Amino acid sequence: MSDRITLAHGSGGKAMQQLIHELFAQFFDNATLRQQEDQARLPLTPLAVQGEQLAFSTDSFIIDPIVFPGGDIGKLAICGTANDIAMCGAKPVYLSAGFILEEGLPIETLESIVRSMAKAAGQLGIQVVTGDTKVVPRGAADKIFINTSGLGVIPAGIEWGADKIQPGDCILISGTLGDHGATILNLREELGLDTQLTSDCQHLYPLAEALLPIKGIRTLRDATRGGVNAVLHEFIAPSGCGFCIDETALPVLPEVRGLCELLGLDVINFANEGKLIAIVDKRDADTALLALQQTPGGESAAIIGEVDSSHQVTVRHAFGGYRWLDLPSAEPMPRIC
Amino acid sequence: MSDRITLAHGSGGKAMQQLIHELFAQFFDNATLRQQEDQARLPLTPLAVQGEQLAFSTDSFIIDPIVFPGGDIGKLAICGTANDIAMCGAKPVYLSAGFILEEGLPIETLESIVRSMAKAAGQLGIQVVTGDTKVVPRGAADKIFINTSGLGVIPAGIEWGADKIQPGDCILISGTLGDHGATILNLREELGLDTQLTSDCQHLYPLAEALLPIKGIRTLRDATRGGVNAVLHEFIAPSGCGFCIDETALPVLPEVRGLCELLGLDVINFANEGKLIAIVDKRDADTALLALQQTPGGESAAIIGEVDSSHQVTVRHAFGGYRWLDLPSAEPMPRIC
Repeated sequence: MSDRITLAHGSGGKAMQQLIHELFAQFFDNATLRQQEDQARLPLTPLAVQGEQLAFSTDSFIIDPIVFPGGDIGKLAICGTANDIAMCGAKPVYLSAGFILEEGLPIETLESIVRSMAKAAGQLGIQVVTGDTKVVPRGAADKIFINTSGLGVIPAGIEWGADKIQPGDCILISGTLGDHGATILNLREELGLDTQLTSDCQHLYPLAEALLPIKGIRTLRDATRGGVNAVLHEFIAPSGCGFCIDETALPVLPEVRGLCELLGLDVINFANEGKLIAIVDKRDADTALLALQQTPGGESAAIIGEVDSSHQVTVRHAFGGYRWLDLPSAEPMPRIC
Repeated sequence: MSDRITLAHGSGGKAMQQLIHELFAQFFDNATLRQQEDQARLPLTPLAVQGEQLAFSTDSFIIDPIVFPGGDIGKLAICGTANDIAMCGAKPVYLSAGFILEEGLPIETLESIVRSMAKAAGQLGIQVVTGDTKVVPRGAADKIFINTSGLGVIPAGIEWGADKIQPGDCILISGTLGDHGATILNLREELGLDTQLTSDCQHLYPLAEALLPIKGIRTLRDATRGGVNAVLHEFIAPSGCGFCIDETALPVLPEVRGLCELLGLDVINFANEGKLIAIVDKRDADTALLALQQTPGGESAAIIGEVDSSHQVTVRHAFGGYRWLDLPSAEPMPRIC
């Protein structure tokens, strides 16, 4: 195999077959992939218990740079879609992987990304069961874009949704805010602020699973692009509620806070890749908080505010007083995920 | 809404919300999308009959140019993935749509593509139930790439697969060869050979459905990238068989044949986007041929050869004599789909 991606690798011919067999099939190996069909054929039996539903989600990953402290585009592509599935209480089971490769990409780079995908998938026992590879000429894409789509099973009786949110509910976050956004910003803008900055890119299903037995869970959502602020704004319409955040309650790492202050940016708008927001009935909020804190990845979970009927997102400041949070037109930067 | 895609449209903020509500939600409107969750929640009940299986497939579309005689990247993105699902006998039911947009793409162009997707999905009653939008800075992608992933239900008792192929089986093609590849080649290289060239981009489920009642169907596959030759080569390993094509039996439009002769290219390597290959028990071949010919889109179906035990793909010439067909390392050109 040549040491760089060529147009032939996306052509349906010999080079593509070789890439599939020597790279993708090695790392993602499973019985479904081994059938070498153009579609995965999945038995419905393990899925088909009365009352269960299928969760289906898709995400494309275009992050720049493709490797960063705490992960790479491969880990991100697995965790990102798996997390979207996990947010409705479903265990992610199957993923597809669609690659768009730029001619000239070192095979070594691709291999390390695929290895990282296989590792992240393996952590939850997720199988990559179907895929696609396209190659575009140099300059028509930037190195590598990955789409993953996924399937999971929502347990019977779990009906979380933003429409279940009620005034008086508590707003929980599963950990520190803005780690991913700050890491990428620091890296890409060569701010060189702090070498301790690390993306929080991780699986959220263990946290969601810990919340499954708790009756008062209204909804979960991972706070990715647009951060906590974007998620709370997304909740306004389906819930008809408002959201009030207590500024002093927000868990933020000192190095992330430093970067925000330096640049005059608000961490509440920063992207996360391993944090979820949970809206929980006040009566179950402490139980939910404890469940998160006792699960790896949720140690810094906190109750950060409450739901009201204002139809707005507001922040209560340390010294009293409130301000409205508008939904910014854009995040601080493109290609964050 | 501005008249061009900006980075803000991919940021998770206001501009992205607006794009989703004013464009995607309008054209793809359905009850699942209206929930505005990060994942589609699909009832298993209509899927969960004993013995059924789920078909799951993914494809990214990077074609250049994005509009061509007979279709555009939107129609292609729907039909392409729906066809991969249809090839195992499954009716395509749900699709995801992941967009990677280049900053500066006219909104008008995006709208016409989305309209085209909605139309193609509507033709089969397919619902686009979940999606994702990313925007990259100018120059980091070429206009628009679309990933679609999809789900369908394989009827109980249908177990088509390349491993079922046996020596003596007949090779059927559902229509003329190479229309899509020739159309794109002519357009992109500005050959100006024939204005009648039109892509065959279309849904193949109606043809697959027509074959469902026929017992002797071994397997179907759509002959896309790499054409008929690539598909037959893909069949060699799982079947342990060989494939002999009768050159005089290949249905080829005169304008496609002309382009091939001019450029010295072999139509058997050309991409199709609306043609399937069926391998059928000899006893059922005529029944299958008639079923294809009586279904819209299959009028030019033909029996083009037979399965042998050679482990090779060979062509029998008009004046006798045979030649081996090697699998080319690459298709005649990149970005065909």
